[in-house]
Amino acid sequence: MDANLLIALAVMLGAAKLCGDLFERIGMPAVLGELSAGIAIGNLDLLGWHVLDFAIGDHNLAFLGELGVILLLFQVGLESNMAAMARVGVAAFVVACVGVILPMGLGYGLHAVLAPERTWHAHLFIGAVLAATSVGITARVFKDLGRIDSPTGRVVLGAAVIDDVLGLIVLAVVSGLVEGANSGKSLDALAVMIIIGKAVGFLAIAIALGPWVSKRLYTAASVLRVHGVLLATSLCVCLAAAWAAHAVGLAPIVGAFAAGLVLDEVMFHDHIAKGDKPLEERLEPLGQFLTPVFFVLTGAHVDLGAFGNTDALAMAGALTVAAIIGKQACSLVAYGEGVNKLSVGLGMIPRGEVGLIFAATGAGLMLDGQPVIPQQTYAAIVLMVMITTLVTPPLLAWSLRRTP
Amino acid sequence: MDANLLIALAVMLGAAKLCGDLFERIGMPAVLGELSAGIAIGNLDLLGWHVLDFAIGDHNLAFLGELGVILLLFQVGLESNMAAMARVGVAAFVVACVGVILPMGLGYGLHAVLAPERTWHAHLFIGAVLAATSVGITARVFKDLGRIDSPTGRVVLGAAVIDDVLGLIVLAVVSGLVEGANSGKSLDALAVMIIIGKAVGFLAIAIALGPWVSKRLYTAASVLRVHGVLLATSLCVCLAAAWAAHAVGLAPIVGAFAAGLVLDEVMFHDHIAKGDKPLEERLEPLGQFLTPVFFVLTGAHVDLGAFGNTDALAMAGALTVAAIIGKQACSLVAYGEGVNKLSVGLGMIPRGEVGLIFAATGAGLMLDGQPVIPQQTYAAIVLMVMITTLVTPPLLAWSLRRTP
Repeated sequence: MDANLLIALAVMLGAAKLCGDLFERIGMPAVLGELSAGIAIGNLDLLGWHVLDFAIGDHNLAFLGELGVILLLFQVGLESNMAAMARVGVAAFVVACVGVILPMGLGYGLHAVLAPERTWHAHLFIGAVLAATSVGITARVFKDLGRIDSPTGRVVLGAAVIDDVLGLIVLAVVSGLVEGANSGKSLDALAVMIIIGKAVGFLAIAIALGPWVSKRLYTAASVLRVHGVLLATSLCVCLAAAWAAHAVGLAPIVGAFAAGLVLDEVMFHDHIAKGDKPLEERLEPLGQFLTPVFFVLTGAHVDLGAFGNTDALAMAGALTVAAIIGKQACSLVAYGEGVNKLSVGLGMIPRGEVGLIFAATGAGLMLDGQPVIPQQTYAAIVLMVMITTLVTPPLLAWSLRRTP
Repeated sequence: MDANLLIALAVMLGAAKLCGDLFERIGMPAVLGELSAGIAIGNLDLLGWHVLDFAIGDHNLAFLGELGVILLLFQVGLESNMAAMARVGVAAFVVACVGVILPMGLGYGLHAVLAPERTWHAHLFIGAVLAATSVGITARVFKDLGRIDSPTGRVVLGAAVIDDVLGLIVLAVVSGLVEGANSGKSLDALAVMIIIGKAVGFLAIAIALGPWVSKRLYTAASVLRVHGVLLATSLCVCLAAAWAAHAVGLAPIVGAFAAGLVLDEVMFHDHIAKGDKPLEERLEPLGQFLTPVFFVLTGAHVDLGAFGNTDALAMAGALTVAAIIGKQACSLVAYGEGVNKLSVGLGMIPRGEVGLIFAATGAGLMLDGQPVIPQQTYAAIVLMVMITTLVTPPLLAWSLRRTP
């Protein structure tokens, strides 16, 4: 082990708490403070201070952060109520579809105008990059403000998760089209169907069998006498679900969210009766330790130096506008009692991991002898992800506070 | 991130709890169950099952385990009372010295008999390998049995920590002697003095300035309004102390223990008054998640196949006997009201990280054209570490239960 990681972790935690406090004082969500702490740490090298550079790209800390965001989505799932979530299912699905189609269209048109020399495959890829919402940032803002189990929270979180699944399908189709164009073959419809089947199947099985299986699992585990059985069992369920989601091609955080959604207080009854503390209370310290690592590292990957390249900036600006406007149509189609339409549109803005996965996939696919997403476009996409991530917390907090 | 680590982590946690429960039912400490779970997982390859092999050597999981043992020693330090610890300081020092000198003598003599063809430098190195107690196993057994803040617990933990410092000094002197013998120069006394000065200085500064500094730190931190300030501040202190210990050449766990020892309930008063939960309660879930990772991985590194090599087994058996008998002299010199002399000797048995570091250093040092610790001796040392680690929990639990 590199012992310097210990001091890097201490600095990241300390800075996250300090900046989180600062932002809460000015009425912003704490997560924005953690992102800012990360930006500061990640750009110390601009001041010629390279002492923390090693930590930003470190795999061990990245793994801690991944565990942190998995735990966050598990906590968010636990705070969500499955029955209430099911009631907004149709609304969330409509919001998700609009939130995928419109940004894709805007991205396609924008790229066709800005890069007319590229084929329609490249335009489509840029459209796909703009499709998927990052559920991490949005979930954290709703959590910071205590609004996860509100009508608006349910619609946005539901839509963001469906979005993630739709995004995966879009990526499969678009990649298939590009590869088909390269090899002269047409799109392999069967392969796409398999991908769709695995993703939809995972969610269907989780929702249909999850409650039945976990009820029995917790009853069986309540026989154990050692300390911390409720926490250990729940962590096993969360980690296994995250892994299973990844195995079917979804993001691990989708699995963690589904696990949290499926579990219910009632299942823990035997454990609580034996003296175990409530699960939320036990998970809180884990989240407080690991989740900031994720957001500080996310911030640390924001390269302020990239804002000096005007070409990338112009493309990034255009993409960001398309990304933001595209998702505002969601607020037009959102419905339901007590749903804050404005917050739905704003909550769908952040693009994160999934968009970056798309961009990386595009950078690796070749078309007409050049990558579908060339270096400069990739930089613009990263900037777009950064900006949408940074503008969402204050906008969403503002709109949620307007309606009590 | 390799998503398969998620399922490996779930399996390790689940197996640790199941085996921990099994061992508690037969009156053994849970840590023995975690070690056994690790042995099972680590030797699945003997059954031709290689599916978890990747996890055993994985750096990310090893880092989680390191954090786990650091947190364990921090918790143990918090449960210890500094004033009470100081009262047994002389007794602990005497126990530590005897526990270093006698095993060194036995190891020297044993190696002189078993390998008469080697020079006295090699004998001395084997002696040094037998010197340092592994504080992790012992601390965990005392914690499992709720005996950390008992007279016996204080003497053993104090002696184990002093042991670690003495071991470091011994390593420096012996390595210096071997390097001196190689280059024809004599031992660099100044270099040894600097090593001793850094280690003793670290502990002196931690004990002298620690309370003053941390009192002010916690008062300053109590101004922050975000959630979880008490936990975050304490984790920062623990991680920074672990790093500082490493920086002066000590093991990170010694720093974490010192940090826990220095902190006092009284310092958290402002935080508790603001509604923060007690620190022990907040640290518990973190320990329950991360500490088993350390013990499962420790067990997983036990290679049952090594027990098939009779030469290594013979040497290992001799070293193990020397290691165990050497530390029993500690029970003869242990004194103090309520101190269970037998438990002191048994509690000092386990050799762990420090012994392995010595062995690895010896394997890297050349003398007369061959390594001071050749491959076969190294395997025997690893076996000795394994056996002393596995026999201590049941022996110590048995002896502690004899006196209520």
